[in-house]
Amino acid sequence: MNPDILKERHSATFDVDKLTYIVDGGAEKTKRRREIESMVFSDPDFDEVDPNFLSGSERYDQSVRKSALMVLKMREYGVADPDDIMYYKRCVHRERPEPLDLHLGMFLPTLLNQSTPEQMDRFFMPAWNFEVVGTYAQTEMGHGTHLRGLETTATYDPSTQEFVMNSPTVSSIKWWPGGLGKTSNHAIVLAQLHTRGNCHGLHAFIVPLRDMNTHQPLPGIVVGDIGPKFGFHEVDNGFLKLENVRIPRENMLMKYSKVEPDGTYLKPPSDKLTYGTMVFIRAYIVSESARALSKACTIAIRYSVVRHQSEIRPGKPEPQILEYQTQQYKLFPLLATAYAFTFVGQYMKNTYQRISGDISQGDFSELPELHALTAGLKAFTTWEANSAIEVCRMSCGGHGYSRSSALPDIYVNFTPACTYEGENTVMMLQTARYLVKSYRQAKDGQRLSGTVSYLNDIGTRRVQPQPVSARPVVVDINDLSSLVEIYKLRASILVELAAKSIQQELQRRKCQEEAWNNSSIDLVRASDAHCHYVVVKLFTDKLAEVGDTAIHSVLSTLALLYALHGITRNSGDFLQVRSSFLTASRIKELLSQLRPNAVALVDAFDISDKTLRSVLGRYDGNVYENMFEWARSSPLNATEVHESYYKYLKPLRSKL
Amino acid sequence: MNPDILKERHSATFDVDKLTYIVDGGAEKTKRRREIESMVFSDPDFDEVDPNFLSGSERYDQSVRKSALMVLKMREYGVADPDDIMYYKRCVHRERPEPLDLHLGMFLPTLLNQSTPEQMDRFFMPAWNFEVVGTYAQTEMGHGTHLRGLETTATYDPSTQEFVMNSPTVSSIKWWPGGLGKTSNHAIVLAQLHTRGNCHGLHAFIVPLRDMNTHQPLPGIVVGDIGPKFGFHEVDNGFLKLENVRIPRENMLMKYSKVEPDGTYLKPPSDKLTYGTMVFIRAYIVSESARALSKACTIAIRYSVVRHQSEIRPGKPEPQILEYQTQQYKLFPLLATAYAFTFVGQYMKNTYQRISGDISQGDFSELPELHALTAGLKAFTTWEANSAIEVCRMSCGGHGYSRSSALPDIYVNFTPACTYEGENTVMMLQTARYLVKSYRQAKDGQRLSGTVSYLNDIGTRRVQPQPVSARPVVVDINDLSSLVEIYKLRASILVELAAKSIQQELQRRKCQEEAWNNSSIDLVRASDAHCHYVVVKLFTDKLAEVGDTAIHSVLSTLALLYALHGITRNSGDFLQVRSSFLTASRIKELLSQLRPNAVALVDAFDISDKTLRSVLGRYDGNVYENMFEWARSSPLNATEVHESYYKYLKPLRSKL
Repeated sequence: MNPDILKERHSATFDVDKLTYIVDGGAEKTKRRREIESMVFSDPDFDEVDPNFLSGSERYDQSVRKSALMVLKMREYGVADPDDIMYYKRCVHRERPEPLDLHLGMFLPTLLNQSTPEQMDRFFMPAWNFEVVGTYAQTEMGHGTHLRGLETTATYDPSTQEFVMNSPTVSSIKWWPGGLGKTSNHAIVLAQLHTRGNCHGLHAFIVPLRDMNTHQPLPGIVVGDIGPKFGFHEVDNGFLKLENVRIPRENMLMKYSKVEPDGTYLKPPSDKLTYGTMVFIRAYIVSESARALSKACTIAIRYSVVRHQSEIRPGKPEPQILEYQTQQYKLFPLLATAYAFTFVGQYMKNTYQRISGDISQGDFSELPELHALTAGLKAFTTWEANSAIEVCRMSCGGHGYSRSSALPDIYVNFTPACTYEGENTVMMLQTARYLVKSYRQAKDGQRLSGTVSYLNDIGTRRVQPQPVSARPVVVDINDLSSLVEIYKLRASILVELAAKSIQQELQRRKCQEEAWNNSSIDLVRASDAHCHYVVVKLFTDKLAEVGDTAIHSVLSTLALLYALHGITRNSGDFLQVRSSFLTASRIKELLSQLRPNAVALVDAFDISDKTLRSVLGRYDGNVYENMFEWARSSPLNATEVHESYYKYLKPLRSKL
Repeated sequence: MNPDILKERHSATFDVDKLTYIVDGGAEKTKRRREIESMVFSDPDFDEVDPNFLSGSERYDQSVRKSALMVLKMREYGVADPDDIMYYKRCVHRERPEPLDLHLGMFLPTLLNQSTPEQMDRFFMPAWNFEVVGTYAQTEMGHGTHLRGLETTATYDPSTQEFVMNSPTVSSIKWWPGGLGKTSNHAIVLAQLHTRGNCHGLHAFIVPLRDMNTHQPLPGIVVGDIGPKFGFHEVDNGFLKLENVRIPRENMLMKYSKVEPDGTYLKPPSDKLTYGTMVFIRAYIVSESARALSKACTIAIRYSVVRHQSEIRPGKPEPQILEYQTQQYKLFPLLATAYAFTFVGQYMKNTYQRISGDISQGDFSELPELHALTAGLKAFTTWEANSAIEVCRMSCGGHGYSRSSALPDIYVNFTPACTYEGENTVMMLQTARYLVKSYRQAKDGQRLSGTVSYLNDIGTRRVQPQPVSARPVVVDINDLSSLVEIYKLRASILVELAAKSIQQELQRRKCQEEAWNNSSIDLVRASDAHCHYVVVKLFTDKLAEVGDTAIHSVLSTLALLYALHGITRNSGDFLQVRSSFLTASRIKELLSQLRPNAVALVDAFDISDKTLRSVLGRYDGNVYENMFEWARSSPLNATEVHESYYKYLKPLRSKL
């Protein structure tokens, strides 16, 4: 043990294990987690070569090997509890994404939730036994967050009782699904359902992709890997082009909506039934933000007590770099953030579990708020964690840049969370929609409950003519509840200003949609302030649950740091909101002024395509065709069937 | 050509070529750059496989191949002007770093500047002809920015007239130099010079590393690649352990300081002689920030007019994503920043050239300010560009995450600029040292000139008892010179507050060094404000040089956006500085409170080493030994001599 780090542990003022129990959600959970960790880490079958020393194809290969082994071992040892499965899987893959993620996390659950009993027999059981290996193909090359824009079609042909699946354009090629490129032999494909001359919107279809014996792509199926990415090197994110692929009518997931043999379409009983999964996944991402940031902080803080550099006092030995105020200022607010997000993640998980009982009984009353909250918190926490991980990396100086620090890997595998499951800006605007709606309800005299209840004060304030910023606010910067109040005030002011911005735009004869777009900077800011308030509040609430005095003390310090650091970073908002809006509104005008020259201004840099080497930034703008070309030349596509299929996946079936 | 992007070019209000001339520094420069680009890009010998499709070893191989070819072709075509060489090299390597960077950029120039005539014959000419291939080995595993901490020793032995070179500890192993791992057969090694029982500090020594015929490491030389990094995949950043390596006395670079045969040490005439190079490199990095950000903006903005998504008005076609106010708000301030930094880079280059004439004649009078300015601007521009590139990447949604977007590569190859050539926080503190010194001079009634001349007002202000923030400032947010004034005011307030913080700490009986450390958050903030002011000012100054009305108009809009965006992002500073300092000072106390528990708080996350996979974040803190072990198992170290040596480097010599 390094003596510096030993000294640090001796100087701590609290019992580390007790805090770990709080982080894990109870001593029992810590115990079980550690049991599973020791089960996996002591198993030599799960030893690995450092993936950074492997080629892309080798990384994929190693990961498929581990996944196949993992499935066998979990059954052998009877690991069946969902939390246990998650821990086990995490340990096996050292928290990296892996090719079977979508089979386990999306394909099986979707079958479970949306299959008819006949489909359960035909698909779920073979998928459970890894004969059917599936993925979930929704995103297309030209379409992401906006689901209505998806172009893939499933046209019902009553003469054969089949759906004819097609990718009518280049931009409609399915793009990104994990495990689609090489691993899966089936996919749940989201497509626009056409029957009897009408389009009934998106529905899910089970499409066989590869021959069950040879694993070769089936006729009409063009499938492959989309090529190297920033991270996710273990995962064969794939493309799928459907060319008149016929599937039986019974391959549409028909638990809720149905197409009858003659082509008659039957609507689902409620359109909120698939809502819950989305909320669950976004809530889960909040915990992922906490986890990724916890790892980055662990690395940066431990290294900062081992590393000695420069001098504070001349002639004295070089101090630990954590002695520098600037280093503390970089890292401690992030450490506080990691704890804050951990507790927010726990809250989200508990709230989801509480509400999902109601949902399953058809009570959706709390869902809109939870939906709005998870959208915003997903965006807020992933953005914060994303930039924080990079601060941690750079705080380690040059060595943070080495793959041996693990910080580059943590970053590249985490950063897609800002984009997937709802692009963050879009998420913030979803939350804003709920906030503005709530604000209007409050103004109309309705009593709001839940996290937006602070907007009730708007009604009271309305009768007072003085400007908001003139309200006397007495803040005790050492009192968390006082700080929660000013976060609340900031949020309510920013929600009000965003709502008023929309109002002003409408008065300028803009239509509702343009008014919304022209206020979207303010709306994102309002959502951000709302989420920030919620995080500060939940951190403060958590303290009330902590009995141990020493831990209560250190967590209080962290919570205070989190709240005060947020204030200094956004001090303009807290000090005098209105005058900063003058500048903000001028900025909006400048944006419109620049819009016509945007491309010309970058063209003026005159950076040749050969230098830029970017499919997205091509001078000719022909993005999609070239993206497809690029992907097809990727090494993983050199053979139709990757060798790992013969080595691991095919043998796996016979063993289960 | 994509019709969307064509439409954009038609709607532009200015002549793109004319703006390109301004960016390049003149129409002649643009012409020459384009000639060189067409020379390289039309040469099929320089075609390449997309590096993202290659393994690490293949990437290195492809890069060495191109470098060897480039050397031959530049001589063949008589490319000899320094700017031309730079363009040519950039084109060949598509602006990626490459294994010969340090040979060309550090080894040859250092020989040129610090060699005796005899050393010029013995080393420079063979290096010019690529028999000697060298690198510059300064950074050690345990020591970076703080040069006095370097541990490598060169002990003079008068009996043999040799220096004995040693790496006395693990942390003293040379670490990071580009081209050291596999490519170089020589290195300029920075080591503590010991002679006649005294240590005379760091000096430079030419150390042969590998046999000139077999390329095998020489006795006592342990050399290899440090393993995979975040980026720089083409470069064999290396390690070097010296075990009683003996080199002739004449291998010390002795143009300035000398060791005589009997071991007598002669000091250099001035310690500022090596100062200039550092200033030059940092000034160059400012332009690199502009360049990297220009590339990222080019990609993000072009893609944003090609990509259509969601809807602003229901029922209408999906709009280009650049129509969204939030997208404009993400990208246009960054575009403005790219232009701002371009002009700052030009200013730095011109200033350096102007001053370096004086320096060569022994006039160092302007050097301290230039040194302080380059340190701060290097940090300011790299930090800004660094986060901006990631905003560009994420603004492209999922596709920005694909390596085909080139954005991941731009980021990973640019981000080390925040760390190398002076870690950014350390750089900011160097600038702060100059600012505080200037502030004190102004208070003592001295007249300051140059970029700090705004501090002269401090003297005037001192006689007025009212607080700084109460000074009436009339700001016209449409007038750039008015905005320059408030940036100036903000900088002067923050410099004054930092200086006063030091004063207060001294009054609390802290020693000078502790007072400095306890004020370092404020000092960094002051430097940041100073640099921000300089950038706004230089952008504004540049406009005066622009004659074309259309271009003047669009650049003015960009400059205004840059200035106003900076104000909204730091609105607390601009609105009411003092009260935010209350919070800031409480934050400092919280940092100290947390310091003793920092490691325990991350230990409580209880993330096992197997999960963390981080050499820096190991639970036992044994970083350095394990970093060495990790590096040695990297695939590039599987053989002592990489095959590219036989294929390209060895044949190159005989052709020159």
